Amino acid sequence: MYNIVVVGASGAVGQEILKVLEERNFPVGELKLCATSRSAGKQMVFRGRTYTVQETSVDSFAGMDIALFAGGAASKEFGPAAVEQGCVVIDNSSNFRLDPSVPLVVPEVNPEDVKWHQGIIANPNCSTIIMVVPLKAIKDVAGIKRVVVSTYQAVSGAGMEAIEELTAQTRAVLDGGDYPPKVFPYQIAFNLIPHIDVFQEMDYTKEEWKMVKETRKILHDDQLAITATTVRVPVYRSHSESVNVETIEKLTAQKAREVLAGFPGVVVLDNPARKEYPMPLFCSHRDEVFVGRIREDNSIERGLNLWVVADQLRKGAATNAVQIAELLIKYRCLRGRQ
Amino acid sequence: MYNIVVVGASGAVGQEILKVLEERNFPVGELKLCATSRSAGKQMVFRGRTYTVQETSVDSFAGMDIALFAGGAASKEFGPAAVEQGCVVIDNSSNFRLDPSVPLVVPEVNPEDVKWHQGIIANPNCSTIIMVVPLKAIKDVAGIKRVVVSTYQAVSGAGMEAIEELTAQTRAVLDGGDYPPKVFPYQIAFNLIPHIDVFQEMDYTKEEWKMVKETRKILHDDQLAITATTVRVPVYRSHSESVNVETIEKLTAQKAREVLAGFPGVVVLDNPARKEYPMPLFCSHRDEVFVGRIREDNSIERGLNLWVVADQLRKGAATNAVQIAELLIKYRCLRGRQ
Repeated sequence: MYNIVVVGASGAVGQEILKVLEERNFPVGELKLCATSRSAGKQMVFRGRTYTVQETSVDSFAGMDIALFAGGAASKEFGPAAVEQGCVVIDNSSNFRLDPSVPLVVPEVNPEDVKWHQGIIANPNCSTIIMVVPLKAIKDVAGIKRVVVSTYQAVSGAGMEAIEELTAQTRAVLDGGDYPPKVFPYQIAFNLIPHIDVFQEMDYTKEEWKMVKETRKILHDDQLAITATTVRVPVYRSHSESVNVETIEKLTAQKAREVLAGFPGVVVLDNPARKEYPMPLFCSHRDEVFVGRIREDNSIERGLNLWVVADQLRKGAATNAVQIAELLIKYRCLRGRQ
Repeated sequence: MYNIVVVGASGAVGQEILKVLEERNFPVGELKLCATSRSAGKQMVFRGRTYTVQETSVDSFAGMDIALFAGGAASKEFGPAAVEQGCVVIDNSSNFRLDPSVPLVVPEVNPEDVKWHQGIIANPNCSTIIMVVPLKAIKDVAGIKRVVVSTYQAVSGAGMEAIEELTAQTRAVLDGGDYPPKVFPYQIAFNLIPHIDVFQEMDYTKEEWKMVKETRKILHDDQLAITATTVRVPVYRSHSESVNVETIEKLTAQKAREVLAGFPGVVVLDNPARKEYPMPLFCSHRDEVFVGRIREDNSIERGLNLWVVADQLRKGAATNAVQIAELLIKYRCLRGRQ
């Protein structure tokens, strides 16, 4: 049994981590739930037992094996302390993802990378995880020359308050009223916002650069040509992505379907005659990445169009983090237990 | 003054045609409003005068100069009769768009094509119109090698009933209830549907093929490499498109901004520092095509990413049709009046 501390336990991702640990029968020994002072004192249930959320401090990690950081600035503040106290940190924030000394892991794609961790393992950006799983399946059989991706991202990627904002704002709009945006820069109800995270070099957003740079790191291909446009849509849960892949070898749509269907963590939903294709409403609360609308790209010799949907709070965050924790046990990579 | 008949006057596009004729001070002489028997008898106002919608028949076109068909099967049934009676037909349906004897016109792009009409001029698909305006601006200065487009299409593209479905269904979902889809194949409230129009060859939808084939015809480039993925989103009005363009010559983002800003019918909204970018909520009820998020494609030597938004009922349908009618007058291409 392993002692687990979840930092940011009361947020959208933190709650999901608890669900996933429970569902996957993770061998949890002692469990500690931490968050900022604002959430300290909240009660949460895990396996029928009630836990009180504590304020995170440098002393939260003594005797723990794995620290799951749900996101935000916490891992910057407390990650080093957790490592010092013998924890392996699995961090869902972007703080360490591009640090060359930190593995960035999607268990279906680069599981072996957990082996060289030095105390911290980074969980990739949600949109990146969702895309990189099918990309790896294709890369293995046909190679990848270039990727053009456009995203359709659910509001829950911006946390619990974003979910409430979509609900309250949608009601207000339907009632002819107004609900000023707080979480998002503009009204998201019945609207689209082509702006996620801050703007950076070349006028790409940080979210767009994450998809470029993290994908390269996970696939071990620093030169991979990939460009991204990320867009927020008025959907509660599950990110969708229109992914155009130029391959090195020709891959027919039929062969791509077979390859994807045989890849771990992928479900192919692709039967146009029966109106089968992935949609966020029907892919939520699932751990797999759903792929459909698989078509040979009519504009080039070797290319594919894919429509990819997955629950970004599950596979895009909590499930992937717990899978990394499972790999730590499998590969005997925990720090106090070699 | 010109005698105008609008067929399908009471639908989403038909209503918009009347508004646009009024706003643009189109020289309307006699006006006749037609529709199916279901809508016959409805009253509509144009320039302060009330008109009663009549059922379309082969006799609806005598003495008229221009017949504006708003969409659907009507132009197949009545188009030839209208032409026979001396009308020029401007048809917003897909019935004649790919007919080699029928010009397919976007006035900012290929205005001269109206001159060779033989009685029918086709108005392109809404998503095509919205994309082809900025593409033409780029093609003129840098050439185009390949386009990869993903769309985010508003429900009003599927008509008035689709608008009502989004409203009623959204309310039902917020109230914890259920509202079975009628217009769309699945729930559209808080969901995305990667399926617009019927599935055709290579598992592309008809909407996706329209964007490929119509763009080639309008740009007079049968070989243009273009691939599309079209997706319905829970937005009332204005289609959005993530457009990746590989150019033949290098075009910097700054130069692209200048070229687009100087092109007729385009408004550049692109100032990340001020959070300026096009969004459907703020581009509706406008006649221009809005372009933002203009970035050099980081994945290739010569390429651009664009985020394009326009009101698909206006520029994507009604405005474009009325602009074609204006060209008919300008070029003296009406049939009874040479």
